[in-house]
Amino acid sequence: MIKYFKSIKARDPAARHFVQIILLYPGVQAMFFYRIARFFYIIKLKLIAELIMYIVRIFTHIEIHPGAKIGKRLFIDHGSGVVIGETTVIGDDCTIYQGVTLGGKGTSHGKRHPTLGNNVLVGAGAKILGNIKIGNNVKIGANTTVLHDIEDNKTVVGVKGKVIN
Amino acid sequence: MIKYFKSIKARDPAARHFVQIILLYPGVQAMFFYRIARFFYIIKLKLIAELIMYIVRIFTHIEIHPGAKIGKRLFIDHGSGVVIGETTVIGDDCTIYQGVTLGGKGTSHGKRHPTLGNNVLVGAGAKILGNIKIGNNVKIGANTTVLHDIEDNKTVVGVKGKVIN
Amino acid sequence: MIKYFKSIKARDPAARHFVQIILLYPGVQAMFFYRIARFFYIIKLKLIAELIMYIVRIFTHIEIHPGAKIGKRLFIDHGSGVVIGETTVIGDDCTIYQGVTLGGKGTSHGKRHPTLGNNVLVGAGAKILGNIKIGNNVKIGANTTVLHDIEDNKTVVGVKGKVIN
Repeated sequence: MIKYFKSIKARDPAARHFVQIILLYPGVQAMFFYRIARFFYIIKLKLIAELIMYIVRIFTHIEIHPGAKIGKRLFIDHGSGVVIGETTVIGDDCTIYQGVTLGGKGTSHGKRHPTLGNNVLVGAGAKILGNIKIGNNVKIGANTTVLHDIEDNKTVVGVKGKVIN
Repeated sequence: MIKYFKSIKARDPAARHFVQIILLYPGVQAMFFYRIARFFYIIKLKLIAELIMYIVRIFTHIEIHPGAKIGKRLFIDHGSGVVIGETTVIGDDCTIYQGVTLGGKGTSHGKRHPTLGNNVLVGAGAKILGNIKIGNNVKIGANTTVLHDIEDNKTVVGVKGKVIN
Repeated sequence: MIKYFKSIKARDPAARHFVQIILLYPGVQAMFFYRIARFFYIIKLKLIAELIMYIVRIFTHIEIHPGAKIGKRLFIDHGSGVVIGETTVIGDDCTIYQGVTLGGKGTSHGKRHPTLGNNVLVGAGAKILGNIKIGNNVKIGANTTVLHDIEDNKTVVGVKGKVIN
C-alpha cells in the first residue's frame, strides 16, 4: 500500500501526501473498489461485482469490468472516461490516463480485450482495441489508436496536429 | 422492449440477462429517460426536458439533447463522455460507444448536427461534426473525425498508431 | 456576469436564457466553483481547494486543478472528460469542448502544462500537452494532439477519417 502511494507520488507531480491521494484520486478509489468487486466476481457473484463497479463509475467516471485481471500498482490518473473491458489483462506498474479505452472490436465472445505487460504507459484518449499484446515498458501517445501487437520497449504515437493557415 | 434487450445481447458479449441490462447499463437508462424528456420537449416544456437530461447526464455520463430525434434500438455502450446535439437525427439499430460526439462546428443556428442512417456503428472517441449525412450501415473507427457526408455501407477510419523507435 | 452569459449565448445556439444556463450548464457551474476553490488555493488551503474541485468533478465531469490560472469568460461547453492541469494558464474569452485535456507529458515538476492566449477555441477531444504556448485566436480541431507552440491566429487540425472500402 505504502509502495503504491510512493509510486503515485513519483508518477504525478501534483500528488502531495497520502491523505490527499486517498480522498481525492478517483483512480485510486476505483482500484480499491475493483479489488472488492473482483473478489465477488471470482466467487461467481457477478451481479454484485458489476453493481459495485456501476456505482464506482458514477462517482469516479472510471469503468472497470470486474472480469479484468489487473496487476500491482496500476495508476489511473484523472481517469474520466476510462473503460477497461471484461477480458483485459494488465501487468504491474502500468499508468493509464483519462479517456483511455482497453476494449473490444466486434461481437465475438472469449478473450477479446488487450493484454498489457508491465510498466506500460497509455496516454490520454488512446484506444487499444482487440485481443492484442502490448509489451513491457511500451509508451502509447495521446489519442493514439492501437489495433495490433506492440513489442517490448516501443513507443507508439498517432499524428500531431498540423497548422493549416 | 424485448427486441431491444435481445439486440443488446447480440451486440455486447458482456451482456447476460435483462435485469443486469436494466440495472447496470447507463446507455439503456439514458435512452429510457431521453424518451420521457423528448415528450416534454415536443410539448414545448423545454426546460423540464433539459433538466431531466441534465440529471441523467450526472449519473450516466451521457448527454443527449432532448431535441435530438433518435430511432429504435439505439445502443450506447459504456457511454462515458457521449454528447448528442440538439438537431441530431439517428436512424434505427445504431450503436455508439463511449466518448463519441455527434456535434456542431460553429455557431450557426438551425440544423447543425449530423444525420445518421440505420445500423450505423460509431467507435469510441469518434467525433462527427456538422450538418452531414452518414449513410446506412456505415462503420466509423475509434477516434476518427468525420466532417463530410459518408455514403451507405462504407467504413471510415482515422490513423493507426505508428511505432517510432 | 451578464457579459459572460451573453458571450455564452453568442457561442452556443442551444443556449436560451440565463436561468437555463445557470441551472443546466456544467461548464458554467464548474467555473463558478473553480473561482471559490482558487481563492482557497491562493491562501494555501490547498486540500480544501482540491476537495471542492473533486466534488465539482463528480457532478460536472469537468476536472479543473485549482492551481490553474484562468482568464475571463472561459466557456467549457458540454465538458465531460475535460482535464485542466495545475500549471495551466488560460487567457480571456476561450472556449473548450468536451474531452479536452490541457495536460502534462512526463513527471517533471514546475510549469508543465500549456499556456493559452485569448480567444482560443479547443475542439472536442483535443489533447494539448506540455509547457507550450498557444497564441491568441488559435483554433484547434476535434481530436487533435498538440505538442508544440502555435503562433497567433493559426488553425491546427488532425487527420480526417478516410473511407477504406
